[in-house]
This record gives sequence, C-alpha cells and structure tokens, in this order.
Amino acid sequence: MPASPIRRLVPYAEVAKSKGVKIFHLNIGQPDIETPAEMLEAVRNSTFKILEYSHSAGNESYRRKLGEYYSLANINVDHNEIIITTGGSEAILFGFMACLDVGDEIIIPEPFYANYNGFAVEAGVIVKPISSNIGTGFALPPPEDFEKIITERTKAIIICNPNNPTGYLYTKGEMEVLKTIVKKHNLYLFSDEAYREFCYEGEHFSSMQLEGVEENVIMIDTISKRYSACGARIGALITRNKTVLQTVLKFAQARLSPPGFGQILGEAAIDLPLDYFKKTKAEYQLRRDTLVKRLNDIPGVFCPNPGGAFYVMASLPVDNADLFCEWILESFSYNGATVMFAPGSGFYGSPSLGQREVRIAYVLNVQALNAAMDCLEKALEVYPGRILLE
Amino acid sequence: MPASPIRRLVPYAEVAKSKGVKIFHLNIGQPDIETPAEMLEAVRNSTFKILEYSHSAGNESYRRKLGEYYSLANINVDHNEIIITTGGSEAILFGFMACLDVGDEIIIPEPFYANYNGFAVEAGVIVKPISSNIGTGFALPPPEDFEKIITERTKAIIICNPNNPTGYLYTKGEMEVLKTIVKKHNLYLFSDEAYREFCYEGEHFSSMQLEGVEENVIMIDTISKRYSACGARIGALITRNKTVLQTVLKFAQARLSPPGFGQILGEAAIDLPLDYFKKTKAEYQLRRDTLVKRLNDIPGVFCPNPGGAFYVMASLPVDNADLFCEWILESFSYNGATVMFAPGSGFYGSPSLGQREVRIAYVLNVQALNAAMDCLEKALEVYPGRILLE
Repeated sequence: MPASPIRRLVPYAEVAKSKGVKIFHLNIGQPDIETPAEMLEAVRNSTFKILEYSHSAGNESYRRKLGEYYSLANINVDHNEIIITTGGSEAILFGFMACLDVGDEIIIPEPFYANYNGFAVEAGVIVKPISSNIGTGFALPPPEDFEKIITERTKAIIICNPNNPTGYLYTKGEMEVLKTIVKKHNLYLFSDEAYREFCYEGEHFSSMQLEGVEENVIMIDTISKRYSACGARIGALITRNKTVLQTVLKFAQARLSPPGFGQILGEAAIDLPLDYFKKTKAEYQLRRDTLVKRLNDIPGVFCPNPGGAFYVMASLPVDNADLFCEWILESFSYNGATVMFAPGSGFYGSPSLGQREVRIAYVLNVQALNAAMDCLEKALEVYPGRILLE
Repeated sequence: MPASPIRRLVPYAEVAKSKGVKIFHLNIGQPDIETPAEMLEAVRNSTFKILEYSHSAGNESYRRKLGEYYSLANINVDHNEIIITTGGSEAILFGFMACLDVGDEIIIPEPFYANYNGFAVEAGVIVKPISSNIGTGFALPPPEDFEKIITERTKAIIICNPNNPTGYLYTKGEMEVLKTIVKKHNLYLFSDEAYREFCYEGEHFSSMQLEGVEENVIMIDTISKRYSACGARIGALITRNKTVLQTVLKFAQARLSPPGFGQILGEAAIDLPLDYFKKTKAEYQLRRDTLVKRLNDIPGVFCPNPGGAFYVMASLPVDNADLFCEWILESFSYNGATVMFAPGSGFYGSPSLGQREVRIAYVLNVQALNAAMDCLEKALEVYPGRILLE
C-alpha cells in the first residue's frame, strides 16, 4: 500500500511550525469556505432519539433529493440508480471492486489524484497511466495513446472532471472521444465529478450525459468540496448499470450504512438557495485569476489557466520540485511565513514526470494567496537549486 | 461478493407488511435503546463553521479519551495505538488488508458474523470455519480443531467476544488457549469486541489483556452497539503492533478521514455517567432472561443461556429454519403480528450446519419479546414442516 505523497512533507512543515513560521497550506483540498449554515443547522436541529443504521444505499429521502439536484444539471437518474457512500473515496473503491477483477487494468490520464493508486491497490487493480502535459494545459491525451495501451485486461478508464490536480475541464468533444473508446473496447468509464459545480470556462459536460454508453458510465460524486463539507464523509456512486448497482449494494450492505448525520447534512444541501454556487464559484474564480496571474508573473514559472476545480499545476524553475517543497518549508520564510505545496511528481504514475511541477490548491482567500505568492517569488530568487530557463 | 444472508428475507417481510401484519424485528442488531441524549446534544450543540477533514486516524482528542475508556477496563493503550475507523466494519476490512495477503487463510469459529465473509472477499482472504455447537453453548472449539486446519497460508484467527450471533462470552481460560495457538503458529488474533460492555455472566476478558502476544492482537471496536449509535459509523482498530498501525494508517489516509459528527458523538460518550452501562446492561439482562426462558418453555425449542451481547442462537423443531423464517413471515400471524428471525445457516461457513437454528436479537423491550414469543409458540404448533424431537 503506497503512502500518500502529500504526507511526506509533514515533518518539514512541523520543523517550520516549531520555528514559529506560519504556513500557507496550499497543499491540500480543504477549503476555507464555510459549510453553509443551513446544512449545519439541519444537523443541529435534528430531533431523533436513536441514531439508527440507515438503508445501506442511503436514506431514500436523500437519494430522491439528490436525484432532483442532478436533474437541474440535465442528468436524469432514478433514486434507485444512486448509492450513497462514505465519501467519494468509498464510491471509487466500491466501483473498482464491483467492475474489475484482481489483475485487471484501469487507464488513468496522469497527473491524477494520488489516492486512485491506493484504491487500485486495495482492489488488486493495475493502474496504467497515460500522460497529459502542461504544454496543452493537461488536455485529454489523443485517442491513439489510449489505443496503444489497451490490452485484454483493460476494463476501465477513470477521469476526474474538472480535474484534480490540474483543474482541467474536459470539453464535450473530449467526452465524445472517451465515449468512442469505451464503446469500442467495452470499458467502464468512471467519472469523478467531485468538483462538478466549479467550472469557470464553459459548461460542465457530465459523463452521465453521454448517449449510448449508459451501461458503461459510473459517476463518482461527493458533497465534500461542493459544500465545503469534507468531514461529513458523504459521497455517491451513480450508474444506470443494474448489475453494477446490485454488486455495489452488496459491498454497501457488508459495511451496513453510510454516516447518519452526514446524510442529514447532504439532504439539506439540496434546499440551499439557488445562488449558493454562484457566490462560491465567483470566490474561487477570483482566487484562480489572482493565483494564475501571480504565478505567470514570476520569472521562469508557467501555469496554464485551468477551467475548473480549485487546483492548478504550475512548473517552477527548479532542479526538483520535491526538494524545493522541502526546502521552502525547512529553510525559508518571508514575513514570518512560508508555503506548503504538493510536489507534482506524486500525481504521476510514470516515473520521472512532473519533477518541476507543483499542485497548488486555491483553498485560501485572495489576501493569503497573494502573501503566499510573495513568499514563492522571494524563495525562487534565492533557492540554491534554481535553474535558468531559456 | 456474497449477499447478506439476513437480507434474503426482506421480500417476505414486505409481503407481511403489505397485508397489514406488524413485524417484530428480532433479525437485526439495531437496538431500540435510545442513544444517550448527552451524546446527541454534543453534536447538536457544536459550533464549528467548517466541517473539515479530521486527522486520518481520527481526532487526537477523541483517541485520547478513548484511551481513558479502555484504561477503566484495564487495557492500557496509547492514543497512537488507536485508529478511528468508519464503523467496526472498516476496522475489520483495514485489519484484514493490512495483515493478510491475497490467498491467505483466516480461521473463524462458526457460527460467525456473516459480514466477516464479505470483508474476507474484499481483502481476497480465504475463510476457514471451525465449528462450535449449540450443545456446548457455542464454547471455543478445542485446540486440536484449530491445529487440524492450520496450514502455511493461515495468518490469523478472528473471534467476536462476546459473540455475535451466539452471545457466547469467552472465558479467560479460552482466551489463554487462543494465546497459545497464535503464539505457536505466529498468527494474528483479531478480536471483535463490539459487545464488550454487555456481559451478564462473569467479567469480560479482552484479547488486549493477554500477555506475551502484544504484537499479534488486533482489537476491533465500535460505538454502534455500546451506545446504540449504529448510524454514527464510528469504530476503532487498536493494536500495539507498530507495523500494522503504519499500514492501517495508509489505508486510513487513502479514504481521508472518519466521519466528523460521529467523532464528536463518540468523544461525548466517554463522559457519560458511570452508571450508564449498569442501566443498559440491566435492561438487556432482563430481556435475555425473559427470552431464554420463553424459548426453552416451548416444546422442542432449545436455547443455551449466553453470557453476553444481545443475541441468542436457538434450535427449533422444524425441518429447515430458512423455510420456517420465510413461512412465518409469509403465511402466519398471531394477534395481527409476526416475527422476523435471522436463519442460523447464514452464520455458518460449512454447508448444512445450523439448519434448524435461528439467531434472535433481543433488541426490543420485554413486552414486545413476550408478544414475539407468543407468536413463535403458536406458529410452531401449526407449521407444516414441524418435526418431532425425542
């Protein structure tokens, strides 16, 4: 079982803290946005006397409400096509276990969310990365790259849309390319849409809207990021494939039920005022615009302007971003503060890729982001491993 | 992935309900006891504004308090030896995945909690049942039965103490027998202590109190039954084995964190008045005494008097308990009500065992239990598949 690549920096952060240095945590996807008060109130105002097991697939009332939410996004699913899970994490694990046998292969465009590796190991599934790159802004790799590595053991593709760690928002055209591939080779298409509400350039086109591959598509969802409710541990697996639903339900029954309070929180989210996402999205877009501009203004730094989520991948003028991320924590501070980034290499399955890249989560407000960028700028001026780019 | 054996009866229960027949649910471990108000109030009075990820091992404050709880039971563990999990279910799965490779074998005295099968399948582990039987009250099988099936692939034994489904409470002597076996063959001993507070005959002796096998023992725990908080999904894995802790932590990190509200609930439990368990235990003991007497008073029924938990296994004078459990739901009622039991066969790994047994959960009050036993008594008088016992 691989250790989380982001956790490797924790001892360095502890050194910084022990010296009294403030750390801007741009390394993890824990937003500073408040959980909507209406959701927390729903839990706090609950009146039941016994916290019972819910249905293993989640409370029917919640599944019906979640269906309403998807219908607003032109995704029509019945509540029986939704299984509530303990976070998006469990939905991914259940999906892998239900659809792939031990030794089967899953293709993932890299860089990708590092925990996909962990769930693949748990399910005995082999990850086959294909590379996207910073030059194209991390667009979908061309179909021939998929074709090249598809074998008889290939059973699935997983994408994250919009993407963690790149922020890339797949176009409808790219989704159609994926549809052609999964149809041709009869693959499952896992679509992790944790950040589906945070799209800044164009519309989100969901895998659930693809026609003709209804049996192939499995959507993974979570309330963690959408409503800044990471600690609730409420996600969902959505598919129109009845066989997959039946198998996932068996896994769900073995673990009895998803968390009770979290389901109350999730159900209350559906009744939030319609402008909730508008406000949250505007805040994230302001942060993205600020961050991307600041990054590209630093000599030698390059950052594509991503269409969604709340992450960017940037390349830095350094020998090795892993070493730089350690150094900035351990040996540098500016105005009493330093920055924690997630080294890019941890998001690639192929060795030696992403070695000059970092993932930056814009989970702090603009003022903090500006201060963090001041710190990065000054750090790069004095970092001993700085390299000169043409 | 096997389907839950208890769920098979659900369609028959729905037939009964559709006819307006009330069902006494003695088939599942969902108690009617109220969740302590102090625990629910802790959640309802919480004031945080962002429901963040907790530490992957659970909030440190909760782990420290849980350590205090165990020390009252003469189990001294550091908070770093506790990993908070999403229910006891996740603790079992993480334990299996951390300690056993695919194809390794685990010995389980049968009858056993049916979901152990599910977690074994998920972890790719092979279950090797050894039989305990109703004649001895489901005491631990003799050591030679263990020795007979231990192979080089055997890596662990799992017990549930006190036991689900039998209610059997293992004696200190039996625990010492297990210690000798795990020491001799260098096995892990998983000890599921979900019902540890509900012991009616003698003291609970925990696997964590065994001396000389500190590296072998992994305790599984949960707040679900102890505080009637099944829907919280809060459990724990406790071990002094550092390597196992490190590996389990990696699985915990991949799924990010256990549920946030549930941890607040669990932490508040440690501050309950000391007589909380006294009262709850007295209630369960009254139910057990009532149920066991009523069962043994019915001609042809035999039920040992179990020392703990809130289950009994009883043998009925019927051709086949699976068929009887279907029939009583589908074709029988008394005073407008019928009873749902869990057929015993679902708790055995060996085929053809337990075919005249049912598991009965005494999760309803004495009045309801008496009404359910009235119904069972009348049903057995007219059941077409009744057999005559000597």
